[in-house]
Amino acid sequence: MTRALGLNDARAVLHRSAERLATRYEGIVNEETVERVVFESYTALMRTAKVPAHVPSLAYRFAQDRLLALAQSKGAIPKAVPEVLFVCVQNSGRSQMAAGMLRKLAGDRVHVRSAGSEPGDSIHPEVVQVMAADGIDLTEEFPKPLTDDVVRAADAVITMGCGEACPIYPGMRYLDWHLDDPAELDLDGIRRVRDEIRAHLEQLLDEILRRRRGQVRDHREGARAMREDRGRPPNRGAP
Amino acid sequence: MTRALGLNDARAVLHRSAERLATRYEGIVNEETVERVVFESYTALMRTAKVPAHVPSLAYRFAQDRLLALAQSKGAIPKAVPEVLFVCVQNSGRSQMAAGMLRKLAGDRVHVRSAGSEPGDSIHPEVVQVMAADGIDLTEEFPKPLTDDVVRAADAVITMGCGEACPIYPGMRYLDWHLDDPAELDLDGIRRVRDEIRAHLEQLLDEILRRRRGQVRDHREGARAMREDRGRPPNRGAP
Repeated sequence: MTRALGLNDARAVLHRSAERLATRYEGIVNEETVERVVFESYTALMRTAKVPAHVPSLAYRFAQDRLLALAQSKGAIPKAVPEVLFVCVQNSGRSQMAAGMLRKLAGDRVHVRSAGSEPGDSIHPEVVQVMAADGIDLTEEFPKPLTDDVVRAADAVITMGCGEACPIYPGMRYLDWHLDDPAELDLDGIRRVRDEIRAHLEQLLDEILRRRRGQVRDHREGARAMREDRGRPPNRGAP
Repeated sequence: MTRALGLNDARAVLHRSAERLATRYEGIVNEETVERVVFESYTALMRTAKVPAHVPSLAYRFAQDRLLALAQSKGAIPKAVPEVLFVCVQNSGRSQMAAGMLRKLAGDRVHVRSAGSEPGDSIHPEVVQVMAADGIDLTEEFPKPLTDDVVRAADAVITMGCGEACPIYPGMRYLDWHLDDPAELDLDGIRRVRDEIRAHLEQLLDEILRRRRGQVRDHREGARAMREDRGRPPNRGAP
C-alpha cells in the first residue's frame, strides 16, 4: 500500500517533469518524445535503484541531460564546447572518476557525460572517498545506463572495459582505455587507477583543445575565404 | 575497421526499421518517438549483447513490440485480449519460462510479454532445453530490459525476484511469485521451477479469463442498460 502510494506520487512528479521539459524543448523535441524520455529514464533507473524514493528526481536530471544531448545531436542547440562521454560497465567507478576529474581539469572548456553498459546501484564508496580527497565531489552523481542520445551528442567517446557495448557514429573520436576495475581494488589500488586516468586525461584534453583550435581556425579561414570569394567576380568557366 | 563498417550497416538497418515503423504507426505515435524507440532499443540491447551482429534485427522486434504497447496504452490500438507481463532479473530464465508456458497454455486468449531488470546476454541453455522437451521453443527469444511502455500496456504484471524494479500503474493486477533462479539450478531443479510456474499459471489464467468474462458481461449489461435507457422517456425530475 505504501509502495503504491509512493509510486502515485512518483507518477505525478514525472508528469510535471515531462511538462516542464516539453515547454523548454518546444519546437526542438516533440512533446511525446519528451514524455517517453522522462518515463523511460525513470523505469531504467528504477531497475537498479537502491533508494526508489530518490529516483523521480534523478530521472528528471537524467532526462534533462538526454534531451539536451538529443537537441545537440540534431543541431538545434549548438555545442558551445566539445562533448566527452566516458563509458564503463557499472558507471560506478572508472567512468565516474574520469568524468569528475575531467570536469575539474578542463573547467568550462569541455562538457562531460558518463554512462554504463550494466549500471550498478550506486557509486563505490571507496571511489567517492578517493575523489573527495582530491576535491572532487561525486556524492550527487549516480549510475546511468548508456543511451543512444548521449552517444550521438559526443565528440569523443572513451570506453573502459565495456567491450563493444557502445554504438559507433561517424565523425566521433573513439578511445578504449585499459584500467583495472575499482570494484575489485582497495584504496591504494583505486589511487593507482586515479593516477592512470589523470595521465590519460591530460593527453586527451590536450588533443581535444588542439583539435578545437584547429576547427575554429579552419572555420575562420573558411569564413574569410568565403568573404574574399564574394568580393571576386564569379568564375564563369575556363579563362 | 570491421566493427565500424558493421555498425554503419547497423545504422542503415535501424533507419529503415524506423521508417517502416513510422509508416505503420502514422497518426498514432510521433515519427521522432518511433525513431527514438528504435535507436534506444538498439543501444539497450547492445549493452549486453553476446552477438552484436544479431542486435539490429532483435532491436526491430523489440521496438515493434514496444510501439504496439505504447499504442495500446494510449488506447489507439485496442487490446483484443488481456496483456500479461512477466518480469524477472535477467529475462533469461523464470520470466521466459513463464511467458513461453503461458503462450502455449492460453493460445490466443492472452498476449504475453517478458522483461528483466538487469537483462542477461542470452537465455540459459538448460532452460531452453527443459522447455523444448515440453514443446516450447525459446530459441527465438532474447533478454530485454524492462521498459515503461510494456508496463503501461499490461493488465497483469508478475514479478519474480526483481524486487521493486517495476513501476506501478493504477488499474493493473500485480503479483509477486517466489521461485528459485534457474541460473543456480541443474536440470532437475529447473524442471521443479517449471512445475511451480505451471501451477501458478493455471491459477492466473483461470483468474484472468474469469475477470475478462466479467468485464465483457459488465460491458454487455452496461450496453443493454444504455439501450433500455434510450427507449425510456428522459427523466425530467421527480414524479
